Order: sequence, then C-alpha cells, then structure tokens
Amino acid sequence: MARRSMRAEISDAALERFHTRGYSAAGVKDITDAAGVPKGSFYNHFASKEAMGVEALHRYAATQRFAVLADDSLPPVERIRRHFTFLRAQQEERGYTRGCLYGNFAAEIADHSELIRAELAAGFDEWVAGIAEAIIQAQRAGTVRATLDPAVTARFILNAWEGTLLGARAARTGESFDAFFQLVFEVLLTA
Amino acid sequence: MARRSMRAEISDAALERFHTRGYSAAGVKDITDAAGVPKGSFYNHFASKEAMGVEALHRYAATQRFAVLADDSLPPVERIRRHFTFLRAQQEERGYTRGCLYGNFAAEIADHSELIRAELAAGFDEWVAGIAEAIIQAQRAGTVRATLDPAVTARFILNAWEGTLLGARAARTGESFDAFFQLVFEVLLTA
Repeated sequence: MARRSMRAEISDAALERFHTRGYSAAGVKDITDAAGVPKGSFYNHFASKEAMGVEALHRYAATQRFAVLADDSLPPVERIRRHFTFLRAQQEERGYTRGCLYGNFAAEIADHSELIRAELAAGFDEWVAGIAEAIIQAQRAGTVRATLDPAVTARFILNAWEGTLLGARAARTGESFDAFFQLVFEVLLTA
Repeated sequence: MARRSMRAEISDAALERFHTRGYSAAGVKDITDAAGVPKGSFYNHFASKEAMGVEALHRYAATQRFAVLADDSLPPVERIRRHFTFLRAQQEERGYTRGCLYGNFAAEIADHSELIRAELAAGFDEWVAGIAEAIIQAQRAGTVRATLDPAVTARFILNAWEGTLLGARAARTGESFDAFFQLVFEVLLTA
C-alpha cells in the first residue's frame, strides 16, 4: 500500500489538533510534529495556517453525515432527526468535549480570518439548505405546519444545534441535547 | 479622584482582550501591557490566567442586562424579548464580531479548564433560571402555552441564542438574529 501523502498526514493532524485544542492553541509546529513531518514541509503544502484551517473544515464536514438529510427512503423529519441523533452520539462518545469545528472556528477565528469566515458562512449556508429541503418535503407531506418558513426555520435549528453543543460542553451533561430534541421534534417540526 | 485599582485595570484589559482576541490568543503579557502595568504584578492579583478568565466572565455578565428578565413592570414575554433585543443591538454595534464571552469560552476553553467550565455551567444555569421564571409567569398569564416545560424551553432558547451569535459572526449579517426572533417569539413563546 502506498504511503499516504504528506499533505494528507498534515491535514489529519491539523483537524485533530484544531478540534481538540482550538485554532490559536494549535501551532503549525504542533501539527507537523503530530504528523511526523518537518515543520518546513508545511509551507510546501499550504499557503498559510488559515488555508490549513479551511482544509480542516472540509475534512471535518466529511465526517458529519449530511447525506442522511437527502435520504428519500426516510420520511423527511426523520432524516433531520437521524442527522442530529448521529451528531449527538459523536459528542457523547467524546464525553461532551470538542463540539463542532465549524462552531468552534466561528467563536474563535471568524473575526480574525476572512478566509475562514467565508468558509464557515458557506458551510453553514449549505447545511441550512439541506435541512430546509427536508422541511419543505415535510410540509408537502403535511408533517410540518405550512406556516413555518423553511429556510428561516432551518437556520434557527442549525444555530440552536451549535449553541446546544456549547451548552453541553459547559455542563458536561446531555441536558442541552434533551432540550434540543424536545423543542425541535416535539414542538417546532410538528403538524 | 483615586486611581482605579491595579486589579480593576488588569480585569478590564483582560475582558477586552479575551473578548476581541480569544482566550488562547490573549497572553498575560498582552493583558498587562494593555493595562499599563508590569507583567510581574499580574500574579499579585490573580492566581492564574484561568482565575483571570473567571473574573472576565463576571465582568462580562454585569454588562448583559439580566435585570430586565425580572422586571415586573413588563409582561413576561416582553422581558425576554427586550433582553435579547438589547443583546442583539450590542452585537450589531460591534459589526457582528466578538459574540458572547460565555459562548466563546465554552467553545475554546471549557474542555481545558475545569475552573472556567464550572463557571460557564453556573452562569448558563443562572441565565436559564431567569428565562424560565419569565416563561412560568407567562404561562400563568396565559400568553405562553402550558404544555412547554419552562426550564427545558429556557435552556433551548439560551442555547439557540448562543448559536445565533456564531451564525451571525460567520455570516456578518443579521439573518441569524431575524430567525431567532421569528421562531422564539412568533412560534415558541405563543399561546
């Protein structure tokens, strides 16, 4: 088997370090050390730490199981529920630490890096669009009330999710997740 | 007029630096330089950077106008609306940057400092209690449906707010705030 590319090694290490330590606390040298490559090689693969942050976001997004939101074999509200149930399980496995790399970067870096801010905005927009499409289909099926604006409701639900992760990390309990599922699936997304 | 205490000077500088740059990016020396005091004097006033973080949270909380949540001269849902309207205006004045220091520390530091994590959990609990009390009074007045659990709903609303700040910082627009106000005040907190 061919050795994985140096770029892939660095990217994996960057994702892990940014997610567990934060953007500022994870230095380029920490990342190259973790990847087992010389620090100087970093700039052969990435123009900047910011560019590495964008790559980490892409790699992180690939782990978030967005495809279920478009899974036509499931009723539309069930797709949204399964998506967030999967994400909740991920957080619980990690003892309510780490949260979402998108939310973390929004809190820590959006104000300071236009490159990363634009990437976060685009990522959130795409995520909102996936949730909104499922809401539209639920409204057609009559399982979500027609008076809700799908895009506005989807934006609210995604933001509520990101804040739920912050609440769970502060409390180290599942209480914030329970509140999210109760309000979103028993109150908001109902007929 | 007496010169403000060195501890107060350091605390003000810490709050400003932590809020604008983040916890990791704001070093003790940055903070003492901004306060115009020698770095060595820091440890005469604070046991650690973490203890300084806790003090910054207390100072930040004092700017968040929690008293309106208990203002009996206003209808209870109006108290909640005015509280978040004030916080939204604060964010808009800052061009959708900085966010909430509690949310920022939850994203960046909760996993790494038990002292700060416990302070965040206590702060969020107190905030939730203030919102829940207003919901209970609204339910008694018949302006919020009785089927909502006040504490669970308050937790959800606070988390949704924290996520709304992240969404607004990523997008640098008011769209996330609009979604919050629409869903919370036109859908959730209604009779």
